[in-house]
Amino acid sequence: MSDLDLGKLTISRAARALRAGELSPLELLGATLRRIEELDPRVNAYLTVTAERAREDAKRATDELAAGRARGPLHGIPIAHKDLYETAGIRTTGGAKLHASHVPAADCTVARKLREAGTILLGKLNTHEYAYGVTTNNPHFGPTRNPWDLERIPGGSSGGSGAAIAAGLATAATGTDTGGSIRIPASLCGVVGLKPSYGRVSKAGVLPLSYAFDHAGPLTRTVEDAAIVLNAIAGYDPADPTSVRTPVADATASLADGIRGLRIGVPRGYFFERLEDEVAAALERALAELARQGAELRDVEIPGVAQAVGGVFNFVLAEAQEIHAASLASHPGDFGADLQALLSSPTPDAAALMSGLRAGDRLTAALRGALESVDVLVTPTTPITAPRIGEESVRMGSADAPVIMAMIRCTAPFNATRLPALSVPCGFTRAGLPVGMQIAGRPFDEATVLRVGHAYEQATEWHLRSPEL
Amino acid sequence: MSDLDLGKLTISRAARALRAGELSPLELLGATLRRIEELDPRVNAYLTVTAERAREDAKRATDELAAGRARGPLHGIPIAHKDLYETAGIRTTGGAKLHASHVPAADCTVARKLREAGTILLGKLNTHEYAYGVTTNNPHFGPTRNPWDLERIPGGSSGGSGAAIAAGLATAATGTDTGGSIRIPASLCGVVGLKPSYGRVSKAGVLPLSYAFDHAGPLTRTVEDAAIVLNAIAGYDPADPTSVRTPVADATASLADGIRGLRIGVPRGYFFERLEDEVAAALERALAELARQGAELRDVEIPGVAQAVGGVFNFVLAEAQEIHAASLASHPGDFGADLQALLSSPTPDAAALMSGLRAGDRLTAALRGALESVDVLVTPTTPITAPRIGEESVRMGSADAPVIMAMIRCTAPFNATRLPALSVPCGFTRAGLPVGMQIAGRPFDEATVLRVGHAYEQATEWHLRSPEL
Repeated sequence: MSDLDLGKLTISRAARALRAGELSPLELLGATLRRIEELDPRVNAYLTVTAERAREDAKRATDELAAGRARGPLHGIPIAHKDLYETAGIRTTGGAKLHASHVPAADCTVARKLREAGTILLGKLNTHEYAYGVTTNNPHFGPTRNPWDLERIPGGSSGGSGAAIAAGLATAATGTDTGGSIRIPASLCGVVGLKPSYGRVSKAGVLPLSYAFDHAGPLTRTVEDAAIVLNAIAGYDPADPTSVRTPVADATASLADGIRGLRIGVPRGYFFERLEDEVAAALERALAELARQGAELRDVEIPGVAQAVGGVFNFVLAEAQEIHAASLASHPGDFGADLQALLSSPTPDAAALMSGLRAGDRLTAALRGALESVDVLVTPTTPITAPRIGEESVRMGSADAPVIMAMIRCTAPFNATRLPALSVPCGFTRAGLPVGMQIAGRPFDEATVLRVGHAYEQATEWHLRSPEL
Repeated sequence: MSDLDLGKLTISRAARALRAGELSPLELLGATLRRIEELDPRVNAYLTVTAERAREDAKRATDELAAGRARGPLHGIPIAHKDLYETAGIRTTGGAKLHASHVPAADCTVARKLREAGTILLGKLNTHEYAYGVTTNNPHFGPTRNPWDLERIPGGSSGGSGAAIAAGLATAATGTDTGGSIRIPASLCGVVGLKPSYGRVSKAGVLPLSYAFDHAGPLTRTVEDAAIVLNAIAGYDPADPTSVRTPVADATASLADGIRGLRIGVPRGYFFERLEDEVAAALERALAELARQGAELRDVEIPGVAQAVGGVFNFVLAEAQEIHAASLASHPGDFGADLQALLSSPTPDAAALMSGLRAGDRLTAALRGALESVDVLVTPTTPITAPRIGEESVRMGSADAPVIMAMIRCTAPFNATRLPALSVPCGFTRAGLPVGMQIAGRPFDEATVLRVGHAYEQATEWHLRSPEL
């Protein structure tokens, strides 16, 4: 395994090594399980580790690969699921006490697809309770810690996924994103997170936070890896009512085409306001790098972003209240205090819900309109870097703001509008905390979004850094 | 014009005649305007006739065709829009007193596309006030009458469109469909109506009833004509937030392929309950005809349909109440009594709205699942034929039901699930009232739905009948 540093190992590099026989799925699994054993007590990314089962799967993958029956780039790759993804015979807690003994009979569609692609399931990853909230820690299973600074949050709600990738505790992970829950931990943990277009990846069998705004997608070390996972999990699924029946192109095909001549929209208002100084500086350097590679930067003006974010917030609250109403009535004490308070807060009335949806529609038309004259939009992923565990409010611009509002400020607009959005690392603060850049594109045009991310990543190589643990 | 009976003239036949020089756009327009002048005082399909403008457009089309600059099958075809479609410089009333002087500055996307395809706009068609309600007559502009029996309703809310096509007052028309408002008048007026997949046809610039469930689509004399119009109006529109960015295939390409070996699902529960005897009999004959042509009929079971229809009803109410709240507060007396009562009825609370959406999601998964093992589903379009003007309740099965609930019973499930659904004439009662058959298919698979409709229509030729007026 000579040059294969597992803390930075990518799917594409591992796949080459596996194919070349330099590495076997069993060896890769063994090394990953040792890292989990050594490091996860400090990180707390895993709620469940399925080591025995993983060894059986890795044994089978090792035999298959040795026999020349390779299934593709994910064959033998150790992955882990956010614990909202139902897995046959493996408990799926949703980060909730009420689901602590929930053992599904069947895999969710994404878990099935990744199993069929030959991945080895390491286990299930920590999340905020029922994926709600992106700031507080899990009250039932303890906080996941940010591998770059264990006193800080990894971001949520897919915090276990972000931390596992950053700490080298899995080669790829899944997450869900309702207001930013894939991209926020990607940004705070210095990894790649992709929220595909709404309808692109099936959510059938994934515990819901909001049917209207949930998205399923990958967290990985590189953009190419995100494309590889997307290829395996994308596609129409009749079992997911929100799945869109539309052709799926190979997301890796145009990755290396470069960005010369590409038009990049920079929405200076809102998205670039109230940024931490070092985040703002990292973004300016990133934009300069994109320009250096031949992309054309264009300022674009996008009105009504805050209203659309408010609309998402209200609608998700109403959905979550309806989903959990019966459990909250019968077992209020089994909910963490934060979630209990949120679910008990006043329900938005129909008029507020509808006008919130309208604000989202207007933003959708505005962003789609802007994307007729530019190919992608680039913004920060989060206006600030990782807050400390327990912080409830942070400095944002010239005023304080609740951590949750700071976190979702730049990401939730792409839930409201359901456009594909990627977070890629774009530098580190002097204190060593990662900064994330968000790239968003046209509906179902993940390929262009990933192409921009890959071009930037390959030139800057932020992904080669690893936290010291 | 020898064999060209304008009361039955189709787009495809007219296009051949126009191309062959047997007919000019000016002649076709002139004859259509004469029919409108003669017959529309009795039918009341038109709220606005734009004769002067139409003559200018027809003059231009005549010159273009004479010069060999043909734009396609719609060049020179006289059409009319439901008066929810905004048209530049032409008042767009929405069937409402409050919009009676509303003159939009720009065409809606569909109107623009059809203008660019060379159609000649005859005018704007009657509708229920703001498209709400499918039973009551328009209180501001008077009722549209069913050409097959002037004492009966044409169905709504695109009643002007259905009546205009049936009476030969336009060669094609547009409609909108939130709970069945294209397919219901198609069924009651003996014409073809297509509700395309949600997101297939832009609604930008069409006055809304419900952002969640509105669909735009054509009413025509034949299935081929519906395919021709669909080809012209389908496609991604960034200005419509619900438009889906997915490839558009030629809907006419496979029309004539026949249905041998096609699997047709027949959802015997719910959709075939509480039918008027003659509707039930017509459907059985239609199913036998499909089987005769080599299709394989399979019974399918679909649970939870009524709950999903209730969900649509509630959500549309909440949306409409939010859309019209300000006008209702400031000008309550300007609304018709029916709409005023509906908009003033209790607003569903968030929990009811959300559980209604969930019922729709479950039905979507069920119907999509069924459509994995069959190619289309066939049902009645409406369980009853056209009620009399003024009737508020009708016999349905062994009990009475409000006309509106009878009307949307079989159509609204395909708004809840957003699947493409077509109504084609499938016979007449002894009293001479048309019966409609509904064909629904997979998301964005209008082509197969139209293929089934075309095969049935060409064999049965119900479309060749015309009402005596």
